[in-house]
Amino acid sequence: MPVRNLISFDDVSVAWWDGLYKSCTEIMARPDDYRDACRGKLLASLFFESSTRTRFSFQAAMLRLGGSLFGFSNPADTSISKGESLADTIRMTSSYADTIVMRNPQEGAALAASLYSEVPVINAGDGGHLHPTQTLTDLTTIAQTRGVIGNVTVGLCGDLKYGRTVHSLVTALAKFPNVRFVLIAPDALKMPEYMTAFMRAHLMEYAVADSLESAIGDLDVLYMTRIQRERFDGAEENVDALMSKFTLTAELMKRAKSDLTVLHPLPRVNEIERAVDADPRAKYFEQARFGMFIRMALLLDFTHQPRGIEYPAHEGEHECGNPKCVTKTELYLPKRLNADGGCGYCDKKL
Amino acid sequence: MPVRNLISFDDVSVAWWDGLYKSCTEIMARPDDYRDACRGKLLASLFFESSTRTRFSFQAAMLRLGGSLFGFSNPADTSISKGESLADTIRMTSSYADTIVMRNPQEGAALAASLYSEVPVINAGDGGHLHPTQTLTDLTTIAQTRGVIGNVTVGLCGDLKYGRTVHSLVTALAKFPNVRFVLIAPDALKMPEYMTAFMRAHLMEYAVADSLESAIGDLDVLYMTRIQRERFDGAEENVDALMSKFTLTAELMKRAKSDLTVLHPLPRVNEIERAVDADPRAKYFEQARFGMFIRMALLLDFTHQPRGIEYPAHEGEHECGNPKCVTKTELYLPKRLNADGGCGYCDKKL
Amino acid sequence: MPVRNLISFDDVSVAWWDGLYKSCTEIMARPDDYRDACRGKLLASLFFESSTRTRFSFQAAMLRLGGSLFGFSNPADTSISKGESLADTIRMTSSYADTIVMRNPQEGAALAASLYSEVPVINAGDGGHLHPTQTLTDLTTIAQTRGVIGNVTVGLCGDLKYGRTVHSLVTALAKFPNVRFVLIAPDALKMPEYMTAFMRAHLMEYAVADSLESAIGDLDVLYMTRIQRERFDGAEENVDALMSKFTLTAELMKRAKSDLTVLHPLPRVNEIERAVDADPRAKYFEQARFGMFIRMALLLDFTHQPRGIEYPAHEGEHECGNPKCVTKTELYLPKRLNADGGCGYCDKKL
Repeated sequence: MPVRNLISFDDVSVAWWDGLYKSCTEIMARPDDYRDACRGKLLASLFFESSTRTRFSFQAAMLRLGGSLFGFSNPADTSISKGESLADTIRMTSSYADTIVMRNPQEGAALAASLYSEVPVINAGDGGHLHPTQTLTDLTTIAQTRGVIGNVTVGLCGDLKYGRTVHSLVTALAKFPNVRFVLIAPDALKMPEYMTAFMRAHLMEYAVADSLESAIGDLDVLYMTRIQRERFDGAEENVDALMSKFTLTAELMKRAKSDLTVLHPLPRVNEIERAVDADPRAKYFEQARFGMFIRMALLLDFTHQPRGIEYPAHEGEHECGNPKCVTKTELYLPKRLNADGGCGYCDKKL
Repeated sequence: MPVRNLISFDDVSVAWWDGLYKSCTEIMARPDDYRDACRGKLLASLFFESSTRTRFSFQAAMLRLGGSLFGFSNPADTSISKGESLADTIRMTSSYADTIVMRNPQEGAALAASLYSEVPVINAGDGGHLHPTQTLTDLTTIAQTRGVIGNVTVGLCGDLKYGRTVHSLVTALAKFPNVRFVLIAPDALKMPEYMTAFMRAHLMEYAVADSLESAIGDLDVLYMTRIQRERFDGAEENVDALMSKFTLTAELMKRAKSDLTVLHPLPRVNEIERAVDADPRAKYFEQARFGMFIRMALLLDFTHQPRGIEYPAHEGEHECGNPKCVTKTELYLPKRLNADGGCGYCDKKL
Repeated sequence: MPVRNLISFDDVSVAWWDGLYKSCTEIMARPDDYRDACRGKLLASLFFESSTRTRFSFQAAMLRLGGSLFGFSNPADTSISKGESLADTIRMTSSYADTIVMRNPQEGAALAASLYSEVPVINAGDGGHLHPTQTLTDLTTIAQTRGVIGNVTVGLCGDLKYGRTVHSLVTALAKFPNVRFVLIAPDALKMPEYMTAFMRAHLMEYAVADSLESAIGDLDVLYMTRIQRERFDGAEENVDALMSKFTLTAELMKRAKSDLTVLHPLPRVNEIERAVDADPRAKYFEQARFGMFIRMALLLDFTHQPRGIEYPAHEGEHECGNPKCVTKTELYLPKRLNADGGCGYCDKKL
């Protein structure tokens, strides 16, 4: 099934992923063959919230295809404060562009935008909700370092409670065979029940560990995430000692498999000791580069789709109780539910 | 007569417009033939005041011609605060660029800039004074939807007192035959006397209406503008009821001609009901796209002009009482009068 | 010797300069031959401190070679505040780019960045420390206007105490034969003793003058710099009268040689009277254009170097007492001394 917008990785099939990844490997093998592939094409890069890594990755991807970009990296540089709706901003922008990539602090904003765009929309992060191109990046790195994505034991370490990228990765990996997890997190930041329920529902095995030391020897992939000190409520006696149990050190790497793949969505702060960087199993910087190549494959597809818009019918007022939902400010959005009967924009229960 | 800078639409002839529009239609018909037309050319995009629509339109126009851009979208990103004069900033920028497009809150700033530039300067808005490429956009849309620009009844609705784009459109349309106006505005925001005097002087008929409902049936073109609540002084009993008389609804569209063209410079807030968007007579989003194409035609011409500068002679101090005039901060500017003996920069009476 | 990064002009040989300048003259002679020379190449432009002139110059240089850019012009637009180290920001950025140009308020930041980059790094200013591409610009302008760089009497006028560009120019000119200086500055802003010691050590003659009037007749090159009022401590009776002695006027130009070259790094405020601009000996705006061409030569070289990184060994903690040194915040930086035993990053004495 062709994909018109990339809002959530849940929307795509494994077959679509396979095609995208194949295109990515062809670009990596012969990048010079693609340096004019998007010549004359324009990407609108709308960052309603600042971002360095994701924005740079999309920019580099589009430019390496010979395409061009316009947009803003900071909403303060725009005159959007004049009271224009998101729908009108997108309608106007899409009249100039061939694809739109958008980051927005409101949950569901990318989906809302896609309803009013003449061209494909890519979600580069809608608040704490979804970030599908990070998931593409993670899958690409696993595929590149291990050959295949399935048949793997994946350690998830750090903040498993609030970590958007970790939740997205888990739901994405459900599409691949024989994926086992080891959940390595402090009590205060452990994987939410709805995510472990998801694993059970999809027959994905998981174990729980209370330190990286106890788990590292079993892992094929270790996905590290940043723990923010502010997440602790002060009840913990010694936050430093606690955090050290979820810190990757050169010493710990000695206990790991020789073909371990260490991933991190970046930015890294202290959760990976700098001495690990030189270890060939540390793939987090190559991961950033793989992210650029899979975005090239995505843009190559999306910028060549035909222009068109079908205005959504207005079927009554949408009501959602989530204060971060895009529907709280964009009052014209049509009523829409997700598969579970929750809000069709932010996926919260109604 | 060749046009070196585009500061005011008043400066150009109908013959120049005809040539520009012809080039625009050729670009629209065969855009791929033009995707390298500005290869190797650079546009400096200097936005001393933030803008989304105009900036995006110029960026997309230049990039679709295969050209490139540099500049700033927010003066806070620059080091211009180090005390450099506008003349020096322009002189320096023009040494890198092939054309300069500039928005500046000071009236007359684009004209002042053009005196110190080695390359053509395009005015993308100088405060509340002029915005000639919006006028190009409006004329292009009328020409595209009606075939010709003259022989037309144009309704102007909303804020006719402060609306810069409306005044520019009226003066531009004076160059075309058989243009009639219907002026549809609340008392507090009616067309200024000097503009109706201009219509009389140019033998353009006009009628006055106190609601959109009473006028819409007669119109070939309806130019909608935003009314800002702050414009009312509180004397009006019911601002909501008043504003509703100048709001375009799907209901009202039923009374309009079948070939009406609805325009709006954007951003739209509430003055056009969202349900109108799907009406094929609503052309305000296509208008944005036409604006990109006519700017392509303009940039194609301007970026291929030879580099050169002739410093203005200093003929004594210029004095203007308008606090928003560029001459209030750029004290070195040469004395200059307009055709009416007013300030040659901001056009205010001396 | 090939040059991998341009951190300080001191690091390069005259032979390297000669090659770069030759490339520059070829680009100036046939710019169209180079408009695809960097096609498919990406420059990351990281301005941690705002800059107009230097940023525009690099952007124009890269774009005129057919290359592309990404980056930021204002650190507020980035998410670097999330606590990422400079090393990681650079490592990530270098995975997308072919060369990095960076301005940063911390002294030694560009050198530190170069240790963690897969691609060449260009220092576009590290606080008050170094700005080697301004020196390239100055040398190019002297070579273009005089044919050779040596055999010349150079007047340095204005703020010789804090003027980073002046100090860099002096150390650069030490590589060329028969350079004499006239130091023209108020007492409070005279050339520091370590710089005059440098001149003596390199057998460069210098004289001192207390006004531009007394010195101008002897000069082949006059390098003007901006004096900031805040530099005076109030002890001077009449700052205006004092500053006027270091102001270049059209009147003074009558006493200068017919082949004088007047330079200024820009921005100019009042230290050069505007009436001088039209004098053919005033080269400060052409200097800006020459700066673009020499940066084209530099980018042409750097963007074609192979990708690679050799992580620095950690040889114990670096300690430097300079609060502006990059090592005060980037605590992981390896110990490093300069040739004089000072800090290897900011060059201050330890």
